[in-house]
Amino acid sequence: MTAKEVFYKVYGEIHDLLEAQQILEWDQQVIMPKGGAEQRANEASALAGIIHEKLTSEKNGEIIANFEKEAETEWDKAHLREAKKNYEKQKKIPSSLVAEKSKRTIIAQSVWEKTRAVSDFKTFSPFLDGVISITKEIAQYGDSENPYNFLLDDYEPYIKTEELDPLFESLKKGLKELVKKYASENTERRKEAISKFISASNQEKIGLFFLEEMGFDFERGRMDISAHPFTSGTMDDVRLTTRYNENFLPTSLFGVLHEGGHALYEQGLDKNNFRFPAGQACSLGIHESQSRFWENIVGRSKGFWDAYFEIVNKLSENAFGAVSVEDFYKGINCVSPSFIRVEADEVTYNLHIILRYEIEKEIINGSLKVKDLPEVWNEKFYDFFGIKPPNVSLGVMQDIHWAVGLIGYFPTYSLGNLYSGMIKETLEKEMGSVSEISKRKNLKEIREWLKERIHSKGRLYPPKELILKATGEEMSEKPFLDYIEKKYDSLV
Amino acid sequence: MTAKEVFYKVYGEIHDLLEAQQILEWDQQVIMPKGGAEQRANEASALAGIIHEKLTSEKNGEIIANFEKEAETEWDKAHLREAKKNYEKQKKIPSSLVAEKSKRTIIAQSVWEKTRAVSDFKTFSPFLDGVISITKEIAQYGDSENPYNFLLDDYEPYIKTEELDPLFESLKKGLKELVKKYASENTERRKEAISKFISASNQEKIGLFFLEEMGFDFERGRMDISAHPFTSGTMDDVRLTTRYNENFLPTSLFGVLHEGGHALYEQGLDKNNFRFPAGQACSLGIHESQSRFWENIVGRSKGFWDAYFEIVNKLSENAFGAVSVEDFYKGINCVSPSFIRVEADEVTYNLHIILRYEIEKEIINGSLKVKDLPEVWNEKFYDFFGIKPPNVSLGVMQDIHWAVGLIGYFPTYSLGNLYSGMIKETLEKEMGSVSEISKRKNLKEIREWLKERIHSKGRLYPPKELILKATGEEMSEKPFLDYIEKKYDSLV
Repeated sequence: MTAKEVFYKVYGEIHDLLEAQQILEWDQQVIMPKGGAEQRANEASALAGIIHEKLTSEKNGEIIANFEKEAETEWDKAHLREAKKNYEKQKKIPSSLVAEKSKRTIIAQSVWEKTRAVSDFKTFSPFLDGVISITKEIAQYGDSENPYNFLLDDYEPYIKTEELDPLFESLKKGLKELVKKYASENTERRKEAISKFISASNQEKIGLFFLEEMGFDFERGRMDISAHPFTSGTMDDVRLTTRYNENFLPTSLFGVLHEGGHALYEQGLDKNNFRFPAGQACSLGIHESQSRFWENIVGRSKGFWDAYFEIVNKLSENAFGAVSVEDFYKGINCVSPSFIRVEADEVTYNLHIILRYEIEKEIINGSLKVKDLPEVWNEKFYDFFGIKPPNVSLGVMQDIHWAVGLIGYFPTYSLGNLYSGMIKETLEKEMGSVSEISKRKNLKEIREWLKERIHSKGRLYPPKELILKATGEEMSEKPFLDYIEKKYDSLV
Repeated sequence: MTAKEVFYKVYGEIHDLLEAQQILEWDQQVIMPKGGAEQRANEASALAGIIHEKLTSEKNGEIIANFEKEAETEWDKAHLREAKKNYEKQKKIPSSLVAEKSKRTIIAQSVWEKTRAVSDFKTFSPFLDGVISITKEIAQYGDSENPYNFLLDDYEPYIKTEELDPLFESLKKGLKELVKKYASENTERRKEAISKFISASNQEKIGLFFLEEMGFDFERGRMDISAHPFTSGTMDDVRLTTRYNENFLPTSLFGVLHEGGHALYEQGLDKNNFRFPAGQACSLGIHESQSRFWENIVGRSKGFWDAYFEIVNKLSENAFGAVSVEDFYKGINCVSPSFIRVEADEVTYNLHIILRYEIEKEIINGSLKVKDLPEVWNEKFYDFFGIKPPNVSLGVMQDIHWAVGLIGYFPTYSLGNLYSGMIKETLEKEMGSVSEISKRKNLKEIREWLKERIHSKGRLYPPKELILKATGEEMSEKPFLDYIEKKYDSLV
């Protein structure tokens, strides 16, 4: 075999094992009987060990080095770039640290689950400290001036705080004003219009209907139920999950549009390259741009509901009765400061993220101590939103991320929103208003455009470059802020 | 780490990977979207490659050799024995042959599916020949005098044709007479009593009810639907499947009792040993003894239906109306020669197996040619049953086994029946009649007995020895024949 053939064979197989890992994880969330947890942990750890070994072995270093001479095409070179980047990064971190972090996060997660329920930060604090201190240690193997960048790169490759800071600073400034400007009145009454009883099975029909409309291929994927919605798998086996609140359709409805956006991305990767390093999704931020695009820019537009409100009402067995499409539209677009990130509206949402980003940097690069987190959180929260969480469950303990060692992950959510704003601007220049396209029920046209510009490119380019090629523009928060202003000006 | 610790670590991890493999297979049968087949094949093959490599590596040979000096307990020694046996067997067979067989069976299976549907043996024949010729080649690496033994040992370890032949010969002789004696009259009318419309969801309730009764632990397992029923997984994550024919409850009912028997076995293994070589189920024959025990000896007994007929009728929304428990009992115990093995009653069933066993031996050890199979099959069939299959779909092409290279597998079905007869005899000596225990709805007592004598022993002893320890008797077909005679004497 040539060096090139060896590279593709070895990396294809690693990818196949990663897919197997995802099936095990999906099964654990959706199917596995409760008692199987210990066995599943063993299975997952055995598989993870093999993948880690394959990725960090000397032999893999040689495979990459040999491929260097034979990489010809643009894809060859991108696969090589990604394989090399990952190999060099993994080699830097001692395996013992990775294993120790994995152990600590397993314990911290279970402590978090119990202590969050009773708002007990004090008991949780030493376990969180254990996770954060080892994460800091790992981060030292990157840029010692700015260790946080080493973590950030795991989730959003090729970006640094130096670029993020000004972007998020402007975003914060803009949003703080917009939140004041657009804070809804009568939110309770507005929400009443969208809080109707709809059975889980009718909600499922609605979700499946929209996935069809968006162009999700059910021959190559499926939808199930799980406690925490997620999307898993790639290409020909893509699975999304949702959950049903029978008194509040938006939970599943926008959940499905969101996960559907992730799922279309995975189904839309390049068939010939998805098994290789640069064939996967570009970054978490780009992934989130797709989910937020479908959830908010498409799914919360007026045209979308002009087109689909009646159908949804019919599929709900007329649950919305006398509610007008205008009232429904207002109901799903309420703006108001609130404590929980995952329930935040699209205007306040990014402030939740920036708050976390600022704290994360202080913890990793600065001198912020874990024990001081609740106080710092609450102060910042008051500064951003003008309210203070009454307890840590509604405050610093609400997210699982830090307990499981995901530090540097949060910013990708806001990057996703910024990317989605830029994508919207370009798509509309070329195809006209998203709201109008939705009104004509031409969702599949949107999907095709996204597939061509984003999905099929995989990780051929770093995120910024992908966005530059797709939109012709440099990274900016402006399109997103413009979108928000234009939309909510007409809503107040 | 000591040599002992290394052995347990390495073999525990291999087991975990085998479990992962089973989850992927289960998912493929039950959950996977159609389009995912190619990706799943890649995932399965990557995982199989790793497991094969681990099992056959020089390093594994050393791990076993080192453990030899430290194996102390009875379990230690059994794990060592099994690991060594498997290692030495695998090492004998060139990997290239294994890979080639795997390729040929994949193609042969798909050709079988298509050609069976149209009863076309001629097209199928060269593909089957390809599978059988490479299986013969592999079998040469065992006992050159009797290559079939090498194959048989894959499914029923430690047994040889020299022991099977007289056992099966007596069984055949006995059954041929019993079939004549007990062939039912009015089978059509008798079957009418059990052919009522019962919705799939009611049949599911019935299946779940009986699994509860048997002592299946739903915290450590589940039941789903698949085209071909099977049981998968072990210990704390055991999954069985069934299928529903809404006009014929027995398909799912006895299917669930059968798979439930397999499932109880897996849930009942020894918790401290199931991850290691001798901790798994003893053999396919012993496995089948458990499924057949529950399906037939328990589930087709009169006492069982005296206890449960009314409940089943209620769960069926009174589908059986005026049918008496006697007529129901007669309906599920019709004896008549028929062409399809999987639909055969418990009296004729083993003749189907012995027929295949005789043919398999002739093909592997003798001079029988693949192209002559249909003729040989039909002649033998006439000799055994007094009828001739009108086409190959109802004859030699009905089973998937040979197409996928499972040669030496069939005899385990009959061994299972013989074991189950011996188990019944002993259990009844100690606890009284199975039918009476069932009548008192004390199925869990039966389960406890089986768990103690069979399940929890795993592969601590070879099958024959396990049966000797459990029953105090040497292998014999007599208890099974006695069971049949006693039962059907009272039924004619």
